Amino acid sequence: MSIANRGEESSGLRVVVPIGEGVGKAAASIEPLVALTRDDMARVNEMILARAGSNVELIPQIARHLIDSGGKRLRPMLTVAAASMCGYEGENHVRLAASVEFMHTATLLHDDVVDESDLRRGRAAARLVWGNQASVLVGDYLLGQAFRMMAETGVIGALEILSNAAAVIAEGEVVQLGAARNTATTEDDYLAIIRSKTAALFAAAAEIGPVLVGSDRFERAAFRSYGANLGLAFQLIDDALDYAGSASDLGKRVGDDFREGKITLPVVLAYRRGTDEDRVFWNRVLEDGEIADGDLQRAIGIMYKSRAIADTIERASHFGAVAREALAPFPDSGHKRALVEAVDFCVGRAS
Amino acid sequence: MSIANRGEESSGLRVVVPIGEGVGKAAASIEPLVALTRDDMARVNEMILARAGSNVELIPQIARHLIDSGGKRLRPMLTVAAASMCGYEGENHVRLAASVEFMHTATLLHDDVVDESDLRRGRAAARLVWGNQASVLVGDYLLGQAFRMMAETGVIGALEILSNAAAVIAEGEVVQLGAARNTATTEDDYLAIIRSKTAALFAAAAEIGPVLVGSDRFERAAFRSYGANLGLAFQLIDDALDYAGSASDLGKRVGDDFREGKITLPVVLAYRRGTDEDRVFWNRVLEDGEIADGDLQRAIGIMYKSRAIADTIERASHFGAVAREALAPFPDSGHKRALVEAVDFCVGRAS
Repeated sequence: MSIANRGEESSGLRVVVPIGEGVGKAAASIEPLVALTRDDMARVNEMILARAGSNVELIPQIARHLIDSGGKRLRPMLTVAAASMCGYEGENHVRLAASVEFMHTATLLHDDVVDESDLRRGRAAARLVWGNQASVLVGDYLLGQAFRMMAETGVIGALEILSNAAAVIAEGEVVQLGAARNTATTEDDYLAIIRSKTAALFAAAAEIGPVLVGSDRFERAAFRSYGANLGLAFQLIDDALDYAGSASDLGKRVGDDFREGKITLPVVLAYRRGTDEDRVFWNRVLEDGEIADGDLQRAIGIMYKSRAIADTIERASHFGAVAREALAPFPDSGHKRALVEAVDFCVGRAS
Repeated sequence: MSIANRGEESSGLRVVVPIGEGVGKAAASIEPLVALTRDDMARVNEMILARAGSNVELIPQIARHLIDSGGKRLRPMLTVAAASMCGYEGENHVRLAASVEFMHTATLLHDDVVDESDLRRGRAAARLVWGNQASVLVGDYLLGQAFRMMAETGVIGALEILSNAAAVIAEGEVVQLGAARNTATTEDDYLAIIRSKTAALFAAAAEIGPVLVGSDRFERAAFRSYGANLGLAFQLIDDALDYAGSASDLGKRVGDDFREGKITLPVVLAYRRGTDEDRVFWNRVLEDGEIADGDLQRAIGIMYKSRAIADTIERASHFGAVAREALAPFPDSGHKRALVEAVDFCVGRAS
């Protein structure tokens, strides 16, 4: 069901969701990227399982809880695809891709503790099963393992990029913590947060490709831009789906962000475009955290009325276009086409 | 006042604390090491302050809360001293020493969250002032910055050692979490925990010295052994001081470990050597966490009676001797003498 239809049903309002460039191309699929990276990703997955191990039983238990829950592994896929597209023929991309996924998994573990989330990828969050303490520590362990794998490759350029991303991600999370429940957050504030929190790792994952073949500044910047803008689009679609998706799409319940009082772009837009009465509502549910039955439906209704969801998707579509543009200078190839189609797929998830 | 005297006073029992090799040499001082590393440490401190900065205000606030609270910076001091002793003349030891301190600071931030501690280095723990969430994230930021500095040096050997230590430390913390409040913990169990949790970073800090000059396996193993055994001695003395020190020595209140139900070597020894009545007491206060007025004094009394404090110091003294031994093959030098005296100083803190 499309978001437009869901909106009509849930709010009773007749809205038209503008279909941005690349949005709604039902044909856009992640499959070409999956197919091209299948062999490499099988080795990345082996590496992930091997390096999530430890004699300390709790560590593989918690790590596998997340690892086996079927994340798409989009970030490491970017690394191996970018490496192939750049003509890399060595072995280090596998370890570095696994490092990227471990950094991501560590972030998820710590995020769930910070956000007090209950659900992650459709399963109980690790912190609910094993406690906040174990989640913090196993996150630290995975981060340590990530850097260990990077060091094993000896590729200093990749280490620079990924350690930088680790600091930037944490910085973004701290900013988000400060903006928590703050309805005065602007669109620019929010974009700065997700640039750090989400886009930084996508950018790093993609930039590793050209780094592995010693490419020049120009190619590195292109892959970096591709990754960063794909990350922004990906995050914005996630934000939209939190109000307009279904639990099966998301692996979390619709309204998780709402219940946690998270300020995301749909909220920023709806708040600024709303009536005084709307803002009293947003302040009560988000700033004061007083949520009553029916408030999620009311929030979704306000969002559709103010086109907040549709424009969030429109913004995602904009960043998607920038991501595709970044790869334009490269000659046509299967990998390039698959990476471009992955952008359309990510943006199209919400249509 | 010596621990033996304190013990007599507080328990009313006449105990003799055996003075192990190196213990009780009142003359042992950290000053020679401080003096020899003064110039380097001034630059390490500058680097620490510069790299704890961020445009995100909360990050330097929290980082400086810990950094300015006057930790001894023993770990980075080991790195610069070991580098000098090995004849290193470059600049990378400063960045690597700062990385070591950042890893340590990140661990402290996460530990306080995991242990629910209230006091750290004599000040309110960061988690009490800014919350658990910020402590987790700023810890992650410092870890990211640590790896960024390591990558900047391009010394892959140091990256291998420190990323390995990061994973091992987290692993040790997870084991400790599993052993929390478990009075069945054996001396060997406990030693395995502190080998990971404390000794791993001391070992890594010292091993960076020979790594920087490309030393062979033999010299690396010697510095590693020195660091690891110094770390074990240091931790065991800390454990003893938690029952026998004063708040001014420790920067935490006497009895913090006791109140948190932490199983440390004094507890392990006292539990195993005690009467059935003692064990009923330990199970109530540690496993069940039911602590009444006077229970800390009673715990200290049982420890003196069973020589648990004295033998913890004796064990520390043993590891101190191994640490000194590790440096024996090297020719006499000011740095060697200072590093050896630092061992005596650490062990001697409890006498």
